[in-house]
Amino acid sequence: MRISELSDRSGLTVQTIKFYLREGLLPKGTATATTRADYDDRHLKRLRLIRALREVGDLPIAAITRIVAALDDDKIGLHELLRTAQHALGPHVPPNADGAAWRAAQEDVDSLLAELGWRVSPLAPARDLLAQTFLALRGLGFPIVLTELRPYIDAAAAISAHETGRLSEDAPRERALLGTLVTSVLYEQVLLALHRLAQEDASARRFGDDTMVDA
Amino acid sequence: MRISELSDRSGLTVQTIKFYLREGLLPKGTATATTRADYDDRHLKRLRLIRALREVGDLPIAAITRIVAALDDDKIGLHELLRTAQHALGPHVPPNADGAAWRAAQEDVDSLLAELGWRVSPLAPARDLLAQTFLALRGLGFPIVLTELRPYIDAAAAISAHETGRLSEDAPRERALLGTLVTSVLYEQVLLALHRLAQEDASARRFGDDTMVDA
Repeated sequence: MRISELSDRSGLTVQTIKFYLREGLLPKGTATATTRADYDDRHLKRLRLIRALREVGDLPIAAITRIVAALDDDKIGLHELLRTAQHALGPHVPPNADGAAWRAAQEDVDSLLAELGWRVSPLAPARDLLAQTFLALRGLGFPIVLTELRPYIDAAAAISAHETGRLSEDAPRERALLGTLVTSVLYEQVLLALHRLAQEDASARRFGDDTMVDA
Repeated sequence: MRISELSDRSGLTVQTIKFYLREGLLPKGTATATTRADYDDRHLKRLRLIRALREVGDLPIAAITRIVAALDDDKIGLHELLRTAQHALGPHVPPNADGAAWRAAQEDVDSLLAELGWRVSPLAPARDLLAQTFLALRGLGFPIVLTELRPYIDAAAAISAHETGRLSEDAPRERALLGTLVTSVLYEQVLLALHRLAQEDASARRFGDDTMVDA
């Protein structure tokens, strides 16, 4: 197909597609004339992936470039590819200035992961997110103890096992990458929304409410 | 205690405390002279709650005023109080312009909640968050089916039952309110971080990785 059709079908402008070609995010098409190239379904799939990484993952072009380079490098295994995407997705917490308390929170995270036996890279940004939240909880006088964390640990493990179970090493790597994006960002929003809704339901059942009308 | 001690112990400036007094967020102290008043532990607890609502919940003063009014009104039951706080916390999604698809997504949320039998007010902002995420999933070609949602539903229900079980109708209402704030905002961050970490662990186990070094 011509670049104009690629634009129609991907929902991206010709200008954007040309930018991705220049940046090496999209492989060149097959030249059919000096100024013309032919594109196929692989280009369309790649554009849809890039668009999802930008719009759903909110990733900058530099991060997408790293992910696409890993995607196209057969020496990089599926786990490393997915980890590259996951670390790019963050969420990234700003550096914490409160030296001693921050290091203590980071050590709590290290201890927890060691106790759970989870295989997580030292560079995973979610480590810092967890440490930051531990600090905030302590600041409000809520201690960090394993019994309190247990329901969240169990839920996270069950959900992740389900999500990873849906991925396949035999499927195209692009499909697994898109799946990881969707579970990390969108299904996490689903989980968050369901949590709020389930909280309201649990409170209604426990503390009663016949009105169902907002205050 | 004097207002200066209240300031020291709450970590809030005297100016901020005077603003909260004027806005009616903090009950007046006991007048000990024309320009002096005496404050007690209830004032300190109230200030800590307001501070948590502002800093952890990121709530505007108008929302905190509504919550504090509900807190001080004995005619308002615990469920209604907690729901008021929860709805203020959001998260609030911007109105969606895509009429027909948006209404279809909202109907999907209604159907899901009816099927689950969850007692959730029609005004709960998490309904719109879920509808918005359903729209995004559809846009990427991921269908919304109950079997895919089930692990997230089960996790949300288990966690909420645990969280609500920790609240008590006999404890001070302020304590339950703070508990709801902490589970809705901070423990949700804990869940999110643990989910990302568990995903990385599940991927490492399934697709193998001996290096544990970032790309």
